[in-house]
Amino acid sequence: MTIGVRRRMGVEERRQQLIGVALELFSRRSPDEVSIDEIASAAGISRPLVYHYFPGKLSLYEAALQRASDDLAARFVEPHEGPLGARLLRVMRRYFDFVDEHGPGFSALMRGGPAVGSSTTNALVDSVRQAAYVQILSHLGVTDPPARLELVVRSWISLAESTALIWLDGRRIPREELEPQLVNDFAALAAVSAAYDEEMAALLRRIVKDEPADGPFASLAGRLIALAS
Amino acid sequence: MTIGVRRRMGVEERRQQLIGVALELFSRRSPDEVSIDEIASAAGISRPLVYHYFPGKLSLYEAALQRASDDLAARFVEPHEGPLGARLLRVMRRYFDFVDEHGPGFSALMRGGPAVGSSTTNALVDSVRQAAYVQILSHLGVTDPPARLELVVRSWISLAESTALIWLDGRRIPREELEPQLVNDFAALAAVSAAYDEEMAALLRRIVKDEPADGPFASLAGRLIALAS
Repeated sequence: MTIGVRRRMGVEERRQQLIGVALELFSRRSPDEVSIDEIASAAGISRPLVYHYFPGKLSLYEAALQRASDDLAARFVEPHEGPLGARLLRVMRRYFDFVDEHGPGFSALMRGGPAVGSSTTNALVDSVRQAAYVQILSHLGVTDPPARLELVVRSWISLAESTALIWLDGRRIPREELEPQLVNDFAALAAVSAAYDEEMAALLRRIVKDEPADGPFASLAGRLIALAS
Repeated sequence: MTIGVRRRMGVEERRQQLIGVALELFSRRSPDEVSIDEIASAAGISRPLVYHYFPGKLSLYEAALQRASDDLAARFVEPHEGPLGARLLRVMRRYFDFVDEHGPGFSALMRGGPAVGSSTTNALVDSVRQAAYVQILSHLGVTDPPARLELVVRSWISLAESTALIWLDGRRIPREELEPQLVNDFAALAAVSAAYDEEMAALLRRIVKDEPADGPFASLAGRLIALAS
């Protein structure tokens, strides 16, 4: 018997290493195309040892998706300081950073990847959407949102997803343009709702009141007026 | 031997009957909850006979989804006559009719139902989105869309999907309000894009030029200006 030069990893440490290796591979190529053999090889362990820690590829995929979901939800957290438009723009930058880092895996998941339809992956995707929703309401200072505000926020979250997916498919528009555009889209969707509903109009006036003239909210209004004339 | 009073159905006729019965059941409750036994009973035939025409529930689900997809795509077709806003509003009405008729099945599919992730169901959902995209471009009179127009149209289609899903979840906002709101959302997203891009601005000016003052496009502009002042 010899004493190994490489320290043995504990169970939890090994699991975390495998999740990291798998997430890296699932982010660079569609998870469909990543094999357990490849994950084992990238982690420097045998295929049977991978199965010792994860019963199958789906459970490893779900663990990787859990880590990615936690990561993304953490990027939504923004200090409650300064103009709202600027806060949302900073979050959009971090969102596109995430999408950029996990492109193929993000596309595969949102377009219907191998493990989509599993109740675990659906619940994780929903939990990230819910985290985004809760953050936005907290920045708007609303605890009991009317149905029209909930619609604007949730449907805008879905717009941000589809915009990111379309961006990934060829990257024909620079993300530096799409980030402020999504902030403006939020303002525009809120304005459409406010155009037909007094409660939304009052909310929007309160939001816009403190926005600086050069911020993404106010500058949009100026540009739209110029466009209309 | 006796001569049956009920005429025997041909193979294709029986298949079409089963698809109709299944679609009806899949539309009223989540397809997860509908059994082959129930479909057989509703069609007035035995369970083994269902399997004679469809090897399993997935293939019957896919056939029902194919019929629903064809139905929905046909509702997107609108004569190229009159103002664009009014055309889009008529399509939105037919879209909400469809969503209303197939509520639980539509939700289950779009939120990740039992057969989601099958390449056939994903392809069908994508084909409907593509049909909507092609129709909108034809009404805009654009054959070779710039990337920013493609983004506006495709991301708006996804906004219409999420708006319909949110509507189905409690129906807290009347659909009569959401239909024109989605037409306005389209104009608003196009306007945001036009605010930052000259090609989109020229396109939007051409679209709005022929819109009547009381149409959904022009009335939004007036309401937004009133909101801003």
